[in-house]
Amino acid sequence: MTVGMTLVGIAGASGSGKSLLAENLARRLAEEPGSPQVVVLSEDAYYRSRPDLTLEQRSQVNYDHPEAFEHSLLLQHLQQLRAGKPVKVPQYDYAAHLRQGQTTRVEPPHLLLVEGILVLHDPEVRSEFDLSLFVDVPLDTCLERRLARDTGERGRTRESVVQQFQATVRPMYSEFVEPTRQWADMIVPGGGQNVTAIEMLSALFRTRWADRLVGDPPGGQPA
Amino acid sequence: MTVGMTLVGIAGASGSGKSLLAENLARRLAEEPGSPQVVVLSEDAYYRSRPDLTLEQRSQVNYDHPEAFEHSLLLQHLQQLRAGKPVKVPQYDYAAHLRQGQTTRVEPPHLLLVEGILVLHDPEVRSEFDLSLFVDVPLDTCLERRLARDTGERGRTRESVVQQFQATVRPMYSEFVEPTRQWADMIVPGGGQNVTAIEMLSALFRTRWADRLVGDPPGGQPA
Repeated sequence: MTVGMTLVGIAGASGSGKSLLAENLARRLAEEPGSPQVVVLSEDAYYRSRPDLTLEQRSQVNYDHPEAFEHSLLLQHLQQLRAGKPVKVPQYDYAAHLRQGQTTRVEPPHLLLVEGILVLHDPEVRSEFDLSLFVDVPLDTCLERRLARDTGERGRTRESVVQQFQATVRPMYSEFVEPTRQWADMIVPGGGQNVTAIEMLSALFRTRWADRLVGDPPGGQPA
Repeated sequence: MTVGMTLVGIAGASGSGKSLLAENLARRLAEEPGSPQVVVLSEDAYYRSRPDLTLEQRSQVNYDHPEAFEHSLLLQHLQQLRAGKPVKVPQYDYAAHLRQGQTTRVEPPHLLLVEGILVLHDPEVRSEFDLSLFVDVPLDTCLERRLARDTGERGRTRESVVQQFQATVRPMYSEFVEPTRQWADMIVPGGGQNVTAIEMLSALFRTRWADRLVGDPPGGQPA
């Protein structure tokens, strides 16, 4: 039988640990021989490119608003991958706030994990997911994590991170991100280091994957 | 090797679907041959008995407050079951608000699901759980479900159910139940009919169970 792709959406606040959860889950699944092939896709890659704006103008864009993302392209890619076709994922330059010329070619995996603050916002995008997760972490913890990440690897000042958090991250969370909790099949507290969640999810995918490989087992077991 | 008991706590508002989740999970696990033996234990069985009070006085007791439960007895039973010993679970008469003379003998199962509004409240009780779940359902949905259940099988009037909800269920939820969300490893939206949650949990227990039965399999594959 044909083995289809399983598509999982992972939403939650900025700094909640979505991508760590996706990576830890992919790592856990990779530990086992014969495991499904996993790809993690970040919604951030789908930030709209606005070369028509100056750098100054681009730095003023509200990157926590749904309009900042090109969800139509993300949707198209999910549908292409589902149809078994490779896609070219944009590469985004955070410093220049621009999409780079290069793209990353992604082949359809067995399990596609799509993580981002607003992956459950667009009705068409979220309808593509076989499983929707919402990572639930208090906002003060998210701010701490963003401070650690953005003042480190992304080279920003503490003040600018806090200012952005107050000006856009928190209000956009309340207005657009938090309401998408309602679409989640499961809510994951603690974020990427929730070992129980990782164990449960890996058990689910290994079971589904094993069942798919062997077809519908006798006794009416779940697929 | 000795197969230990796995202990799971399922908390959440009254009417959120905790016991339905436990029953559906037990049913799902029972569908497979060679599955673990599952017992569902209800915290309600551990309501304190107050034969020293009149029926009128007993009907005034706040049954949504932690003090209404004999958590020390629940703890003792969890520890006895964990040690491989059977326990005698009280039978509770909701109409008389009294513990009945009879008890139910429960043998140690492979998987014990303990469901109740405050099973994550007592630190000693919750420390017994290998996995803690919180069922997350909006309170208006919980009220609807309680109306359907309590005016039906428990023979109460619509007015008394609504009155109790306003007087004790909602305030006790905010004060004691909702704060125990923080102890959950996973949060289950939708309650007992969340098929994804049931599939995930059954995959987890089947995997753990298979791993325990056969010991650590070569390569760490799940069964």
